[in-house]
Amino acid sequence: MSEHSPRRAVILLSGGLDSATAGAVARRDGFELYALTVRYGQRHAAELDAAAKVAEALGVRRHVTVPVDLSVIGGSALTGGIDVPKNRSTEARDAEIPVTYVPARNTILLSLALGYAEVLEAADIFIGANAVDYSGYPDCRKAFLDAFALLANVATKAAVEGRLSFRIHAPLLELTKARIIRLGTELGVDYGLTHSCYDPLEDGTACGRCDACLLRRGGFAKAGLTDPISYAVAGE
Amino acid sequence: MSEHSPRRAVILLSGGLDSATAGAVARRDGFELYALTVRYGQRHAAELDAAAKVAEALGVRRHVTVPVDLSVIGGSALTGGIDVPKNRSTEARDAEIPVTYVPARNTILLSLALGYAEVLEAADIFIGANAVDYSGYPDCRKAFLDAFALLANVATKAAVEGRLSFRIHAPLLELTKARIIRLGTELGVDYGLTHSCYDPLEDGTACGRCDACLLRRGGFAKAGLTDPISYAVAGE
Repeated sequence: MSEHSPRRAVILLSGGLDSATAGAVARRDGFELYALTVRYGQRHAAELDAAAKVAEALGVRRHVTVPVDLSVIGGSALTGGIDVPKNRSTEARDAEIPVTYVPARNTILLSLALGYAEVLEAADIFIGANAVDYSGYPDCRKAFLDAFALLANVATKAAVEGRLSFRIHAPLLELTKARIIRLGTELGVDYGLTHSCYDPLEDGTACGRCDACLLRRGGFAKAGLTDPISYAVAGE
Repeated sequence: MSEHSPRRAVILLSGGLDSATAGAVARRDGFELYALTVRYGQRHAAELDAAAKVAEALGVRRHVTVPVDLSVIGGSALTGGIDVPKNRSTEARDAEIPVTYVPARNTILLSLALGYAEVLEAADIFIGANAVDYSGYPDCRKAFLDAFALLANVATKAAVEGRLSFRIHAPLLELTKARIIRLGTELGVDYGLTHSCYDPLEDGTACGRCDACLLRRGGFAKAGLTDPISYAVAGE
């Protein structure tokens, strides 16, 4: 099991635009993909449906979903109890870490990806973390990802026994949303399969007004490309 | 919310002997306890029942259980698919990392504890990790716990904003099982409430022969104390 051809990688797939693009980068780089979706008490299923579609489109070898009910510990608008803010300006979005921040989210996601990677003997983990448009999230920064890689290499049997040296890949880390969309488009990502909205309608339609929708729409506009999904509220 | 009196701590409670003792140390040290049990696809419920009883006996302020289905990613006898080894000698137990190792287990447990701690504004996290009797588990070593503390302090909003500096407490790390049992007994832990067996009978009775049972029985014997629980198979 020490050599695989092609090498395996675990890709954290949320169903959103960023992780779909990160997955396409991993595929371009020649990895055999194993997708992991964490169902962490999101308030809607549209994202999970999107993750399954994106996994299929990426041609992953296997796609697993791990349920983790973070609503039990609370603390975020994305896991219940706090309203998702709407129609905020760029300045307001940048001013503070938003209530949609999920405590220790990427630490939890990466730790599950690490467990899965160890089982698969995959040294490479891809995450769609982005420091530009999510400058307020501490766990979307290089310092965090570097610390996690250090941790991974003392935390696991495979690393301690010298069989694997884990690498955390965040290929979108320094890209704007517009550049991510251009990159994914070049790599053949079908963004019509992805879901970004924090607060969709019952039928899954994106609200068009939450931070995630505003960022996505702005990204497509700046990239000079048409967003293939529809929104409940038209853009400017 | 920046000051609490007494200070809050999150204690990872499995229902086993070690975490019950770590919780008693945290209580002795004056913390207000918030217990977190992670239900990670264990094959039996006896451990979860024990966690609830231990939490009550410790007088925790709140006890939450987060379900995380690790059986999806596989790779351990504790989450299904591999047989739990029985009646192994001390030498055999020490020779290699056992199949009961759960990939990235303590990374996953601590990341969930970190999320809960951030929500509670609790800087202190207690874990019953032990490096003596579990020398084969990479995530029961000081190097791992130190790396996790570094990670925690770059991973979270509360740390990055300077409100909290996370500390990972593993008060049992250097203790033998016999010393853990003596310490807990001094602190009033009722070990009759705890559950250690990896492979109990249907009714929850400990098998007496798996690594966890052998370690526990040996620990009570060396401590010169009587184990209050009963076993399916009598000891020597």
